[in-house]
Amino acid sequence: MTGWQEALERQARVRAKAGLTRTLRPRAAGDTVVDLAGNDYLGLAVHPEVVGAAVEALRAYGLGATGSRLVRGSTMPHADLESDLAQWLGFPRALVYSSGFLANLGAVRALAEPGTLLVSDRYNHASLIDGCRGSGAEVVVAPHADPSALATILAARPGRPAVFVTESVFSVDGDLAPLAALHEVTSAYGALMLVDDAHALGLLGDRGAGGVAAAGLAGAPDVVVTATLSKSLGGAGGVVAGPEPLIRHLVDTGRTFIYDTAPPPAVVAGVHAALRIARDADDRRAILRERAALTVRRLRAAGFEVSAPAAGVLSVLAPGPEAALAWAADCRDRDIAVGCFRPPSTPDGSSRLRLTLNAGISAADFDRALDVIVECAP
Amino acid sequence: MTGWQEALERQARVRAKAGLTRTLRPRAAGDTVVDLAGNDYLGLAVHPEVVGAAVEALRAYGLGATGSRLVRGSTMPHADLESDLAQWLGFPRALVYSSGFLANLGAVRALAEPGTLLVSDRYNHASLIDGCRGSGAEVVVAPHADPSALATILAARPGRPAVFVTESVFSVDGDLAPLAALHEVTSAYGALMLVDDAHALGLLGDRGAGGVAAAGLAGAPDVVVTATLSKSLGGAGGVVAGPEPLIRHLVDTGRTFIYDTAPPPAVVAGVHAALRIARDADDRRAILRERAALTVRRLRAAGFEVSAPAAGVLSVLAPGPEAALAWAADCRDRDIAVGCFRPPSTPDGSSRLRLTLNAGISAADFDRALDVIVECAP
Repeated sequence: MTGWQEALERQARVRAKAGLTRTLRPRAAGDTVVDLAGNDYLGLAVHPEVVGAAVEALRAYGLGATGSRLVRGSTMPHADLESDLAQWLGFPRALVYSSGFLANLGAVRALAEPGTLLVSDRYNHASLIDGCRGSGAEVVVAPHADPSALATILAARPGRPAVFVTESVFSVDGDLAPLAALHEVTSAYGALMLVDDAHALGLLGDRGAGGVAAAGLAGAPDVVVTATLSKSLGGAGGVVAGPEPLIRHLVDTGRTFIYDTAPPPAVVAGVHAALRIARDADDRRAILRERAALTVRRLRAAGFEVSAPAAGVLSVLAPGPEAALAWAADCRDRDIAVGCFRPPSTPDGSSRLRLTLNAGISAADFDRALDVIVECAP
Repeated sequence: MTGWQEALERQARVRAKAGLTRTLRPRAAGDTVVDLAGNDYLGLAVHPEVVGAAVEALRAYGLGATGSRLVRGSTMPHADLESDLAQWLGFPRALVYSSGFLANLGAVRALAEPGTLLVSDRYNHASLIDGCRGSGAEVVVAPHADPSALATILAARPGRPAVFVTESVFSVDGDLAPLAALHEVTSAYGALMLVDDAHALGLLGDRGAGGVAAAGLAGAPDVVVTATLSKSLGGAGGVVAGPEPLIRHLVDTGRTFIYDTAPPPAVVAGVHAALRIARDADDRRAILRERAALTVRRLRAAGFEVSAPAAGVLSVLAPGPEAALAWAADCRDRDIAVGCFRPPSTPDGSSRLRLTLNAGISAADFDRALDVIVECAP
């Protein structure tokens, strides 16, 4: 083994001592695990119409898009999905990416000119952080979900082009940023606001149009939205939605768009079927709201520190990384999948169970899952 | 329209004047275009076994993986594909990503410690360049495919940990880096070599194991390979292959792995079926070699400046961006798709047609395509 491999092994031993080793556990088809770990909030990944649309597109187009969007990868399912995504989100145009990570890198970079100030909520997702870091622009990390702190930051740099970057529903605690109040601040200072709506799309707002729509900001000329197609839409990929000039800019210059193979037509067609279902899924959204309220009640009554979920994700504090790991493992042994989030995946360095609710599982299974979580607590 | 949109519009007008506007042209299912633009080199995207495997996995797992690999997105198809990819490429382990872009970002970052020197071939793909830039490490751009220049760069920084980053077959001209000679240099200086094998996997080497395998470097302890699953394998996604400690490091710490939804099980299963076919596709590889030779002969005889392809991609020089665009458009009007590469997608600022050969199209269609390209020349 050469020196670099030994150095990696040394780092692995340090992580192991700190309880920070991660293990891939491939699941088999048809496993009977009750899933409170995935992001298929509306249960659409397995919906027959979603699977059927994907199968149909597979037979029509084959598996891969065979090229980048601009070379050979653009198909009718891509164009159709983008049209409906734009309409749903309430922006003039939408552009699909092969992952939400690449959509965020592309959006941040497009908005960050060399002299731009990027203000980034301190709990932002890794893809937004990496987008900010890689942009070459100055980055200021802002206190979490704090309009007055944002105002202070922007006031200190008058006249400077600025972009405030935030999530709507945050991915670990599931809290909702005060988007309307934050937008009042960005507007007042002439700044843009970029919102990652990944955990709110399909869940919040009229017809599930997302957290930005719920805050009354759909189509605002100084707001740009990103989201994933892999959570409530049950598929894979990401999207950037905004005004026409931004999308044109991304098509002409965006590196994570131009230099990436287009997402497979079958995935895009399946996501489009999911979008049509999600728009009309007020019943599923109602189930999710009930389950969120029930989960908070049950787990707080059992004495746990539980975050207040705005949509379908919440977290439960664990005493430490190893306790969190053991808690999740004990749940898994009883066929309940829960997320186990440890540093560096948690915003504040704590360790937690992350629970993601799913409208597609039965009420009995859901109740049993909460019992198991309580019984397995460290 | 607010100021930022006006600024984007101004930039768009500058691009339009320079002939650098890009247009998405969605294709319909079953279009009769002869494709010399996509990267489906072996014609496997539409292979019945590939489509069949994806359909089967869709029915078994649903559309999306529903989460990151570590949370809920790891399925048996992911594990099975990774095992066979590692074996095929000749490395101890392989890790699959949702795109080749993310695989490259992850691999470069994993190898770049704060004090590391990154040496990057000047014609490298955008994803490698962005990986270098975002790593925080010092980056030196090396002359293209030049072992002695690499030696000079490494000799000037003795004792410094260094990683040389290159493609095997380059994505525009299709030339093959002298990997064995480059590796002699990196070995002599104790540096690592990271090779993006995207355009060689499935095409070069014994059983199509790629350019690294063809150079006798499979499994070398100081070599790491990345590739896409979207070219000869006809699907989508990327892979990093290397020694066990590297893959463990990526699973534990790699941001583009940890914080990204896993690729859909159906896509992974389809790619796996393509891999099984590609290993035994010496017949298809022979067709590609004949077509590459024929293309060069025909186009050079017609007076064009044509690169010498090592695998399935080559380029034809055009007088300028607008001429390249018109050339490609005239071909498209006659149902021949060719790539049109203009700045910033070309390494040297020139404009070219990029032709990608495909073993799956008929000999008659292929011949006609070459005729059309000659007849439409500016």
